[in-house]
Amino acid sequence: MSNLLNRIDSPRDLKKLSAKDLPLLAQEIRDTLLATISETGGHLSSNLGVVELTLAMHYVFDSPKDKFVWDVGHQSYVHKLLTGRRDRFNTLRQQGGLCGFTKREESEHDHWNCGHGGTSISAALAFAKARDLKNEDNDVVAVIGDGSLTAGMAFEGLNHTGHIQNDMIVVLNDNEMSISANIGGMSAHLSKIMTGQVMLKIKREVDQLLLAVPGIGKEISRYAHKLDEAIKGIFIPGRLFEDLGFRYVGPIDGHDVAALIETFVAAKSLKGPTLMHVITRKGKGYEQAEEKADVWHGAKPFDISTGIFHKKKANPTYTNVFADALIELAKDDDKIVGITAAMPDGTGINKFAKEFPDRTFDVGMAEQHGVAFAGALSIEGFRPVAAIYSTFLQRAYDQVVHDICLMNLSVTFAMDRAGIVGEDGATHQGLYDIAFLRTLPNMVVMAPKDENELRRMLKTAIYHQGPAALRYPRGSGLGVSLDSKITAIEIGKGEVIRDGSEIAIFAYGHTVDWARQVADKFEKDDVSVAVINARFAKPVDKELITKYAQRARCLITTEEHSLKGGFGSAVLEALQEEQVTNVPVKCIGVGDIILEHGAADAQRKKLKLDPDGMFETIAKFYKTLAETAAEKTVSDNEKKSLTGDEKKSRFVRGKKSSPSGNGNKAEIKMRQPLNG
Amino acid sequence: MSNLLNRIDSPRDLKKLSAKDLPLLAQEIRDTLLATISETGGHLSSNLGVVELTLAMHYVFDSPKDKFVWDVGHQSYVHKLLTGRRDRFNTLRQQGGLCGFTKREESEHDHWNCGHGGTSISAALAFAKARDLKNEDNDVVAVIGDGSLTAGMAFEGLNHTGHIQNDMIVVLNDNEMSISANIGGMSAHLSKIMTGQVMLKIKREVDQLLLAVPGIGKEISRYAHKLDEAIKGIFIPGRLFEDLGFRYVGPIDGHDVAALIETFVAAKSLKGPTLMHVITRKGKGYEQAEEKADVWHGAKPFDISTGIFHKKKANPTYTNVFADALIELAKDDDKIVGITAAMPDGTGINKFAKEFPDRTFDVGMAEQHGVAFAGALSIEGFRPVAAIYSTFLQRAYDQVVHDICLMNLSVTFAMDRAGIVGEDGATHQGLYDIAFLRTLPNMVVMAPKDENELRRMLKTAIYHQGPAALRYPRGSGLGVSLDSKITAIEIGKGEVIRDGSEIAIFAYGHTVDWARQVADKFEKDDVSVAVINARFAKPVDKELITKYAQRARCLITTEEHSLKGGFGSAVLEALQEEQVTNVPVKCIGVGDIILEHGAADAQRKKLKLDPDGMFETIAKFYKTLAETAAEKTVSDNEKKSLTGDEKKSRFVRGKKSSPSGNGNKAEIKMRQPLNG
Repeated sequence: MSNLLNRIDSPRDLKKLSAKDLPLLAQEIRDTLLATISETGGHLSSNLGVVELTLAMHYVFDSPKDKFVWDVGHQSYVHKLLTGRRDRFNTLRQQGGLCGFTKREESEHDHWNCGHGGTSISAALAFAKARDLKNEDNDVVAVIGDGSLTAGMAFEGLNHTGHIQNDMIVVLNDNEMSISANIGGMSAHLSKIMTGQVMLKIKREVDQLLLAVPGIGKEISRYAHKLDEAIKGIFIPGRLFEDLGFRYVGPIDGHDVAALIETFVAAKSLKGPTLMHVITRKGKGYEQAEEKADVWHGAKPFDISTGIFHKKKANPTYTNVFADALIELAKDDDKIVGITAAMPDGTGINKFAKEFPDRTFDVGMAEQHGVAFAGALSIEGFRPVAAIYSTFLQRAYDQVVHDICLMNLSVTFAMDRAGIVGEDGATHQGLYDIAFLRTLPNMVVMAPKDENELRRMLKTAIYHQGPAALRYPRGSGLGVSLDSKITAIEIGKGEVIRDGSEIAIFAYGHTVDWARQVADKFEKDDVSVAVINARFAKPVDKELITKYAQRARCLITTEEHSLKGGFGSAVLEALQEEQVTNVPVKCIGVGDIILEHGAADAQRKKLKLDPDGMFETIAKFYKTLAETAAEKTVSDNEKKSLTGDEKKSRFVRGKKSSPSGNGNKAEIKMRQPLNG
Repeated sequence: MSNLLNRIDSPRDLKKLSAKDLPLLAQEIRDTLLATISETGGHLSSNLGVVELTLAMHYVFDSPKDKFVWDVGHQSYVHKLLTGRRDRFNTLRQQGGLCGFTKREESEHDHWNCGHGGTSISAALAFAKARDLKNEDNDVVAVIGDGSLTAGMAFEGLNHTGHIQNDMIVVLNDNEMSISANIGGMSAHLSKIMTGQVMLKIKREVDQLLLAVPGIGKEISRYAHKLDEAIKGIFIPGRLFEDLGFRYVGPIDGHDVAALIETFVAAKSLKGPTLMHVITRKGKGYEQAEEKADVWHGAKPFDISTGIFHKKKANPTYTNVFADALIELAKDDDKIVGITAAMPDGTGINKFAKEFPDRTFDVGMAEQHGVAFAGALSIEGFRPVAAIYSTFLQRAYDQVVHDICLMNLSVTFAMDRAGIVGEDGATHQGLYDIAFLRTLPNMVVMAPKDENELRRMLKTAIYHQGPAALRYPRGSGLGVSLDSKITAIEIGKGEVIRDGSEIAIFAYGHTVDWARQVADKFEKDDVSVAVINARFAKPVDKELITKYAQRARCLITTEEHSLKGGFGSAVLEALQEEQVTNVPVKCIGVGDIILEHGAADAQRKKLKLDPDGMFETIAKFYKTLAETAAEKTVSDNEKKSLTGDEKKSRFVRGKKSSPSGNGNKAEIKMRQPLNG
């Protein structure tokens, strides 16, 4: 079916086409995007919106010598199709397949890895500066959406670029619709450019003035048009960018490939930084996506003809349960307000906004401002809930420290997408939040075992005097029933899910369910396993940790987080603080790796972060301990024949040794001896 | 001497004065600022610059009902003098005294704690929004310098404010000089306003056009002035702020208190957000400070008449040693570049800039952009050194994760002011960097024991393939001699400073010197103490940790960092990974507290983070262990009389017990038994 696209193995092949063939190629690309994304899921709308833009860029510039930097990188699918990755395009966002964002490891045409918004100008400026320092000769083009432009980092980049004035082009891909509705003065400025309100204002005022000039008013009115043009040339549109030191070019129809080519050719020769304002339509060419660009931003697999997403029967998502609970609590408390940083849909704040529009704040892609704003609202007696993905809270780290924790302000951080995120991959993993939050004074750090506990923790956090963060994973909950009345839990207290004497698993968040399954498996082997829902990574439940450290043969910690500084590390610290030595501990979590894209559950399996994998790890660990103890028992005491029930067990258990000589009964807590 | 100021115990008293008395009061305030800051040190220039501004604000508005939010808060001294803190002003920045920034705990007139730049607009907007939600009636005024306006967060705040349009006033305190020279397009925009270049351009183009109109050109030229004014009224100055949704008022002479009062009165009645552009001069009224505003930004104690800083004879600072080493290395390698975020003086990058102006980048108060910019430069083969205080690196946390670590880019983070910072207090403490960095994949985390090792680690970091961070404290080094040739060290390897068999202290960074002193003290008591310069918090030297865990009676870790997730925690993790159980560990560091301002060494003493305090802690810990072991020895073995040298020791030592029954020789490493 596709004739032109099949011939393009690199941008060189694109340049062989006549410019008049490009609209046909654009159609083929759109068909390919639809065919693939309807199967794999992915960022449909934004890619449909940049087909002509990407074609024009590769037609005019010489990639990879000329460098393109795609902000966020989610709109780089067309670029991938044109740069030798067509054959692998159906592996998009799958384990081992193409990344959903730009990726240096994937192609020489990708110069910058990303996934978070607002980084492209910084990278492009560095590429331009490096080129000039090295006396090289190439173009650098950053493509940034109007949504990303609300990120403070993008402004920092614009500001520095305006200052050092290296040659580069910033394409403002203005699709009049970032992920959610337009936010902020910047966006208002852009739409003013479009609607011409400023022009009208100028025209009126100048006309009025000229008409008032005695004797010549009527004469001059016929020159008014020319005057308008002159003034327009001086001032608008894009004057904001001009004020920051950019040359402004535009606005240009982003679906007119000929106009785009012509403008890029002209922009290539300009000196200094140029901002090229391109107007595109998200979802262009696919009616369903054009109409509801927000729904189609990150699309799940769907039926092309109907535009209906394939539905898997699944339990309610954590996101939805969070949103409903927030609404429920807010109905009884008008001080509860919801904050999102340009992710109302992803976080569930869109549902809250429908109920409480006046108490909802979408601050734009501006986590830093959003968090400080939340802090100050809490000073005024409000109870702000900042719903920010774990990965995006990294953007507001200094604000969490400086504007929340140091003032001990009562702000709730609802961190969705904590842990392994699956298809979005490395840039979106929520694997560091426990570590970066629990080191901060005043911060309470918790995670629910299921969606009912999420509701309870949300209430706990909201009514806690001081900052509190709760993390929960992407996707569906366990399908547990929800308490009709939401009740808070006690801070710093874990929950014993089941008691046991040999192994004590302290499980954090959604790993509790897996730990329970692990315990079931051990039960079949007649090994008694305690499962504790740790609930808190700060403060950890020292009492419970100490108790089981003294009781069980070993402690296990489980979490879906980096093992460096995570929950397990907090347990080790607690044991040190309490001077409980002599208990073997095994921490299970994510190693010190970069976890790429792929189906989350498959990745968990690979990392042994699922019931089977955890069982395997713990069984091996336990077996070593038990065998050693048995050896000891055999040599120190009488040999005990293994008969009856004990034969069923794969595990040889020995007498648990008594505390070593280092133990001090007064100050150093030791495990109680237990007979195996 | 001071007559007017002595009468002012609250802003109410100020309002009793006639406006014509205010210039006299301003002089008294300047005298007080000089008298105090010359003794205590502090932010002199910025406070001298806002005397009239602060007087006018308190004269027009009704604090604390009306809320002032001072960005950074370092320019709030005058505000403190006028709000009942005059008598305590001489305690500025001292332990238990007034904070050098605004502090809610200190006064009802302080509504927001700060220290980092760019947060004021977010807080003020929240105060304005909360007021409107609560149907209250008060004014909110944020005061932000042009330097802070380069922070992306400030832009995010402006953008959101322009969007939601609550009534508030943002005073842009444009002192034409942030901490360093003006950076960025924003600053250029502000100076364009001042020089009137834009006006000239408009005038020329409009005149030209009008003169070209046949027949009427000459006639109209006499109306040109009026037309200019009209155009000016529509467009400039401050159009950038107008574009973002603010009403712009100004520029106003910030030392004309009458003009300021008049403008504030007018601004009070305006609806929506207003940006009031005030031009001040840093250091105003003190010639020395006016001339060299950068030197006087954060002033040490000085002689008022000569303007000469009191010098204490001290060893070279870590900052200076860093700068010299960077220059030295850069002389041999033209790929080394230096990056600072508006702190060239504080970081030492000013020295580097003198040698290598083309390879120095002051990106403005824009750590986020600076870090991503550094990352992209490293892709291009440069070796960027981002010199950012530990506390300010928090601002770029997401960029460290997303734009550096995930791509494994070779960027060096030189974190000055790591650990306890002293007089700047809570907002500036560098107590979290080990925790927030060591959880990230690819990141190398290290700290030098002295200034010579700082040089070696800088080289190590610069030539490491991947990101590396080194931290060093504020102030002077140990005065050690510097190797003539800088040599790198091996990553992940600690250094045994002295061997010992009873206690092994793993000391991190500048605590090594203290650990050495602790070992000396123990030596007098005949207790053998090993001191290990850990060097790395990631990767920790597992081999050395395991070795001493097996050898010594106990392990001690020391660091000037939060104990939650810090270096000690990394050692505990290593022991867990290696399954070395049964060794008592004591982690020494900063507890889970907020550490306020005060002299750093006095704070260390209080926290027992100095040789004496550490000795006390370790001795107590060791004594308990030793006594327990002795009890054990006495009961298990023969009683050994304590005679001769042993009597000198305060410590009773027993036979070290053999490994408990849990030890598995093959898989579980245990300590070797040692006789005491």
